[in-house]
Amino acid sequence: MGKVLVLKNAIVLTMDKALTKYEPGAVAIDGSLIAAVGNQEDILRQFPDAESIDCQGKVLMPGFVNTHAHIAMNLIRGFSDDLRLDVWLNGYIMPVEREFVTPDFVRLGTKLGCAELIKTGVTCFLDMYYFEDVVAEATAAMGLRGVLSQTVMKYPSPDAHSFEESLEYCRTFIKKWKGHELITPSVGPHAPYTTGEEILKATKDLALEYDVPLHIHISETAQEVEAMRNEKGMPVVPFVKKQGVFEAKTIAAHCVHIDEGEMRTLEHSHVGVAHNPSSNLKLASGIAPVTRMLELGLKVGIGTDGTASNNDLDFFEEMRLASFLAKGSSGDPTVVPAQQTLEMATRIGAEAIHMDNQIGSLEAGKKADLILVEIRTLHNSPSFKHSEYGIYAQLVYAGKSTDVSDVMVNGKWLMREHALLAVNEKELIEQSQVYAAKMDAFIISREKSVLSKLIAIGGASQEESFEVQAKVAIPDREKVIERLENSPINVKRKRHYREYDTYFNFENSDEGTVRFREDHFVEADGKVSHVRSRLTLIGPSREHHYPQDVLLSRSRYLAPATQSLRFYREYFKPDSEIEIEKDRLRFLVEFEDEEFFINLDQIVKPDMGNFLEIKSTTWSMRDAEEKSEKIVKLIEFLGITQPEKICKDYLELVEDYLQ
Amino acid sequence: MGKVLVLKNAIVLTMDKALTKYEPGAVAIDGSLIAAVGNQEDILRQFPDAESIDCQGKVLMPGFVNTHAHIAMNLIRGFSDDLRLDVWLNGYIMPVEREFVTPDFVRLGTKLGCAELIKTGVTCFLDMYYFEDVVAEATAAMGLRGVLSQTVMKYPSPDAHSFEESLEYCRTFIKKWKGHELITPSVGPHAPYTTGEEILKATKDLALEYDVPLHIHISETAQEVEAMRNEKGMPVVPFVKKQGVFEAKTIAAHCVHIDEGEMRTLEHSHVGVAHNPSSNLKLASGIAPVTRMLELGLKVGIGTDGTASNNDLDFFEEMRLASFLAKGSSGDPTVVPAQQTLEMATRIGAEAIHMDNQIGSLEAGKKADLILVEIRTLHNSPSFKHSEYGIYAQLVYAGKSTDVSDVMVNGKWLMREHALLAVNEKELIEQSQVYAAKMDAFIISREKSVLSKLIAIGGASQEESFEVQAKVAIPDREKVIERLENSPINVKRKRHYREYDTYFNFENSDEGTVRFREDHFVEADGKVSHVRSRLTLIGPSREHHYPQDVLLSRSRYLAPATQSLRFYREYFKPDSEIEIEKDRLRFLVEFEDEEFFINLDQIVKPDMGNFLEIKSTTWSMRDAEEKSEKIVKLIEFLGITQPEKICKDYLELVEDYLQ
Repeated sequence: MGKVLVLKNAIVLTMDKALTKYEPGAVAIDGSLIAAVGNQEDILRQFPDAESIDCQGKVLMPGFVNTHAHIAMNLIRGFSDDLRLDVWLNGYIMPVEREFVTPDFVRLGTKLGCAELIKTGVTCFLDMYYFEDVVAEATAAMGLRGVLSQTVMKYPSPDAHSFEESLEYCRTFIKKWKGHELITPSVGPHAPYTTGEEILKATKDLALEYDVPLHIHISETAQEVEAMRNEKGMPVVPFVKKQGVFEAKTIAAHCVHIDEGEMRTLEHSHVGVAHNPSSNLKLASGIAPVTRMLELGLKVGIGTDGTASNNDLDFFEEMRLASFLAKGSSGDPTVVPAQQTLEMATRIGAEAIHMDNQIGSLEAGKKADLILVEIRTLHNSPSFKHSEYGIYAQLVYAGKSTDVSDVMVNGKWLMREHALLAVNEKELIEQSQVYAAKMDAFIISREKSVLSKLIAIGGASQEESFEVQAKVAIPDREKVIERLENSPINVKRKRHYREYDTYFNFENSDEGTVRFREDHFVEADGKVSHVRSRLTLIGPSREHHYPQDVLLSRSRYLAPATQSLRFYREYFKPDSEIEIEKDRLRFLVEFEDEEFFINLDQIVKPDMGNFLEIKSTTWSMRDAEEKSEKIVKLIEFLGITQPEKICKDYLELVEDYLQ
Repeated sequence: MGKVLVLKNAIVLTMDKALTKYEPGAVAIDGSLIAAVGNQEDILRQFPDAESIDCQGKVLMPGFVNTHAHIAMNLIRGFSDDLRLDVWLNGYIMPVEREFVTPDFVRLGTKLGCAELIKTGVTCFLDMYYFEDVVAEATAAMGLRGVLSQTVMKYPSPDAHSFEESLEYCRTFIKKWKGHELITPSVGPHAPYTTGEEILKATKDLALEYDVPLHIHISETAQEVEAMRNEKGMPVVPFVKKQGVFEAKTIAAHCVHIDEGEMRTLEHSHVGVAHNPSSNLKLASGIAPVTRMLELGLKVGIGTDGTASNNDLDFFEEMRLASFLAKGSSGDPTVVPAQQTLEMATRIGAEAIHMDNQIGSLEAGKKADLILVEIRTLHNSPSFKHSEYGIYAQLVYAGKSTDVSDVMVNGKWLMREHALLAVNEKELIEQSQVYAAKMDAFIISREKSVLSKLIAIGGASQEESFEVQAKVAIPDREKVIERLENSPINVKRKRHYREYDTYFNFENSDEGTVRFREDHFVEADGKVSHVRSRLTLIGPSREHHYPQDVLLSRSRYLAPATQSLRFYREYFKPDSEIEIEKDRLRFLVEFEDEEFFINLDQIVKPDMGNFLEIKSTTWSMRDAEEKSEKIVKLIEFLGITQPEKICKDYLELVEDYLQ
């Protein structure tokens, strides 16, 4: 036993299962661990030679566990607010992340975030972001405890071009940090809708291989659930369970839109839940059924989410809101009382992130992660003693972050008397402002762009970034149709369109091109049954070329076109226009266990003849490669023996033709 | 013009209708008024000789307007939480108010509340409480601006035994304070369900007579609306309008459960609304339709309500929640954006309390009520400039009360660099703790009482305190029935019961008596159709004696009896019991435009013969007097010519009989 430190003269809230309190109480700390907790007299007798610190009657309790955060996003706090979710995410957050998120950005963002967490009394947080290795370095340097999840998803991200890359990054990250005294590495498949079966299974396998936690967003919005029901015929939780994800030590963030059955599944599977009341309200996602989850015995912790949707890491605000929202939404003022909220913020939160053997309560043998909180402030006076729960209500309903005066993690002080140790707050703030100025300049310049204008008039969503496609000129369409219909290829759907495209071009080629398309649906009798219009912003450059002239599509933003062509012409003010009109027969087919679209296009205006186009969406580099090979096979299969494949889209073809 | 003071080097948010900003901006102050607002350069040129203060780049904006508070309740902050509304109100808040609310209590509570308001940046608040004259004295002494409403209601209150008394108090209060530079006196009919037609009309007349605002709680809970619909056949707003209340400058607090038509009525009637998001959630009252109210042009301000249901006066928490809740409950993240919330907190709030000609924005000629807010803090960094609304989002979504550094009201500084001027915070806190200890002792002793036990098992509601009643022995019931049925008296309802009462008596007579009653409803064919049980706690002493032996009933607490007599016997452990069994014919009659209950009772056990009992509820002393005279007339009218009126209830009668 080293030199023991005793914190005495405190109201000790152990937050153990019996909610044991000691007043005046004391806690003895030996190195990184709690040696004993009890009445002051007993502890002082037990450790007569210990150094002691007088807590002056403050509350001494376990530090808070923030069960869901994207800590480096502190650098984009307040970057954009009060917008539609799609506009906010696709128009602001994701573009700025693509442009700015680097290891340097993540390092500074993490330091800012950790500093704010310490000041609000959080001693452990669960994170998910990019360059998580850098998050880990910065967190360890700040002295905080973190369960840090490397994001894996099907879209290209700031730290990986494909899911395989991020999975590899994740493996390296886990190997590096596993066993660290402060950092627990973890796998972060972002969400079911941003990953899919294969990624979910791969990340689960990785989590099991290294016995690390898995952190995922689940059922945050009603749209997500609806889409999953439409596509997979089931809600989100059963889908995720089906991929085996819950075999890992899972933490599910949000769970706003889950039903009773899903709650029971999560409970049986020992999945922890992170409740993010501020973020769910601010983004208008909804109100999670926390009262019912707790009744069913689910381990529900509290999370701040990232500061882009909160907009701070104030854990007192989060606790207060967790209680209030449960009461207000259930109509029952007795639910989620203050002591239960504080349990969620500490011991239950630790259970939710599968760390309760180490943290979450003041008990001998656990880590010395603890805080001192002032309760004799103006905004918290007077205080009453008649109810055993009064002290908890005082903290949750009238307490403020600024009441936290001292923070210790792993036996080391990170804050004393409101002053952060070993962090220069002013310097961090100044550095963040330098970044903010750059991001301001970026967005101000972009605000003049076509994309932003597209977004401004009603939002746009980015297509999955990868689409493999190949195109060949064909003498006529009939032969191919005959071949297709007499082959064993499974034609799952057939459609007939007349497509009228107007392309708006801009002199600044970085702007990309806006396409206004009218799709006329042609029925078997040749009559047009209905018409759909939409806008597409096509990015300026291709993503990738494959052998055999299969190409990956450019980035695309889609938006419904609710106005006339004339309106958009005036709105976008293009420097030039090109019109293309074609008759399209579109087949959805299954070929070698994959789905492909086959377009048989007759280009009517300008009169350029017939083309065969084969396309498939994809989400990983390996998958793209495999599909491009199958496309080549499929072209041959359709009887085009020596195809001259065209590595251009129709706009480029027509532009060449017209010159 | 006196010596002008210029506040310079600030981000000036004027919060005027155009949301004009100046950066760097300045505000010139002459005495209690704003002389000019504009760009720093212009203002400095305009006032070359002015004394100036460098605001160091902080936000300079109008102080917040708290549109609903019970400021003296700061002394019972956190007294009881997480309880059912009836248990909380009847079991804790009202008993402790009855016991402790004195001028001294109100003075200290107001000082505590004002100090907290200043620290959170509130410069004007709308109050409603008892001893409002004392609230006014303390508020003026603290230098804050207040619209202060004296409570008027039908129940006895700490400062009045009857509504007439509180109305008289209110008149005196208005006369004393009208014209004060900081205090605007106001009339506070508590709520429709705690007042009624006569009181609403009387308070409206008083408000019109002195041209002062009228402050009332409206549609806070669904139960309130349901009760109004059942009793008056209309929702709350039309009922209140019908009494002419909206002819006065009205502020309606809460408005949680109002429909589209009611919103339009409030708008047409120029009624301001005080939205109290924390209190409405914490008490599980519901979520006010704020988004729709604002769309309809209603002036919706933000209020903290009292600290007994909040539990603090943190205006930043309230603003953040107002925005978040509107988004989360509507499913639309664009509603109630930050700039609109800040308007509600300032200019619109001033409109809601009918003070916008004086306060709510930084404009020349308005009062110099303003605050400085730090925005370069860790929890608020970085800040972005690309959106004109970014600064508002920063304040509302990431700001904290503790960011308010300086507060000026009426041209006088109340806080400089976070330090309250002329208030000893520590002393206030210590004084409040002395009171808290007394209240703790009171409630701990009461926790052992019968009432608290009654409350503990499921709540109890206090009956309207006054019931006038008279009782006479009669030879038989038939003659009275004959007389009644052949008279012009309008019999509105007739019922037949067998009542089985068990009284639990306690040696400590202060405890009162618990009555367990089984009511057997007897149908015309003599069969019992159904049975109802309930508990009544009957207070230890009578309220008042009237001439002619009419008496006012004892205080009563009612609770449904969901358990067996055996259960309650074991639970309450009475020292003795008395059983009374009677056959009751109960008539509801109208006599001289008033409703009375006539009970014709045959006491079966013990066999004591027949009695005539006449009762009526009342809510004012004058009304009680009038009704007692009518009761005497009614007895004579029923043929009992020389009645020996019995000024006892049945329990006392039987006790006497058994001795």
